[in-house]
Amino acid sequence: MPIAARRKNDAQARRRQLADVAIELLGTGGARGVSHPKVDVGAGVPAGTASFYFRTRRALLLGTAERLTELDLEDLQRLTELSSDAAGGFTGTAGFAELVMYSGTAPYLTRTRARYELILHAGRDEELMAALRSSVESFYRLIRDVVAGWHRGQGPVPDDVVDAQARATLALVNGVMLSFVAGRPLVQSAAELEHLLDGLIAGLAQPRT
Amino acid sequence: MPIAARRKNDAQARRRQLADVAIELLGTGGARGVSHPKVDVGAGVPAGTASFYFRTRRALLLGTAERLTELDLEDLQRLTELSSDAAGGFTGTAGFAELVMYSGTAPYLTRTRARYELILHAGRDEELMAALRSSVESFYRLIRDVVAGWHRGQGPVPDDVVDAQARATLALVNGVMLSFVAGRPLVQSAAELEHLLDGLIAGLAQPRT
Repeated sequence: MPIAARRKNDAQARRRQLADVAIELLGTGGARGVSHPKVDVGAGVPAGTASFYFRTRRALLLGTAERLTELDLEDLQRLTELSSDAAGGFTGTAGFAELVMYSGTAPYLTRTRARYELILHAGRDEELMAALRSSVESFYRLIRDVVAGWHRGQGPVPDDVVDAQARATLALVNGVMLSFVAGRPLVQSAAELEHLLDGLIAGLAQPRT
Repeated sequence: MPIAARRKNDAQARRRQLADVAIELLGTGGARGVSHPKVDVGAGVPAGTASFYFRTRRALLLGTAERLTELDLEDLQRLTELSSDAAGGFTGTAGFAELVMYSGTAPYLTRTRARYELILHAGRDEELMAALRSSVESFYRLIRDVVAGWHRGQGPVPDDVVDAQARATLALVNGVMLSFVAGRPLVQSAAELEHLLDGLIAGLAQPRT
């Protein structure tokens, strides 16, 4: 690999490493718990490293948000691949429900908390919110693909049906994950969540009149 | 009214007033924005007043959480009364959807933000979380009553059906409210939300097999 390309790779790996530490700090101590010095200490790198890669606090939080989306997308993509494998047990709403349940247990719960801390923070910072827009949109499109995949083999399904199902799924799943964060889980098992998701999808199978 | 009773009333009114200021601070500046001195200033009361009524930071946050639940319960109870009035337009899932949409607009959005700030905060503070338990449970029971009310005139509905519907409704509504807080609304109108709620209720009308 040419030196320039290797340097770029190293820089990306370092940013990722620092963002992973910031996710951990955010998830355990809230937005208050995140600072450049704490990220340096957590990552075991020389003082000033986090400031070099993320100039401002907003840049650090934005980098953290991008890393969170990257991790979520990886999980969802893995799920999409698994569900296209007819032999895998991890398919359809069942597989998705399993994935959501993981978000309520260690070590994933910290990432889940970090996500909601960031959402609340972005709600108070218009620049951060604007910067997050494209991540949020890719995430929505991927969830929509997941939901569309649940219709495979059923013939064409109207766009507005898939859209309503995807919005409802995203809302329900966010509500469930939030209940994990609050320590008051609304569902106790993947089977229970699967039942709710199946009901929601079936109940929204007709176009809105 | 006897003097002792009047004093008790005054104290309750003062605690409520201080908690209302704390909700405002929490909703606009996050948990970081709440302190006894800021509550005193916001309420226009002598320095030390908030500390007198709420000895610790946790007591202040707990008082704020209790006040939030009180306000939510008032809204939901009003809705239950309205929906039992056959002449009212504000009934069933339509009325509930309207109420949820309010939570996404000023001045209610601040209260919505405050609720999620507190939930995240409680997720990091086991004592606060334990203290919130009874509020959360009354809230769940009331939502369950609202959902059970949607079945009026349909004959007996199994408990586990109402339970699944109530959990799914609570999760979906939390997800939608959170999308308001994040500035990325998942639904644009009460009619759209009503469509999602109706689908969810219809899709979960059968007991789990």
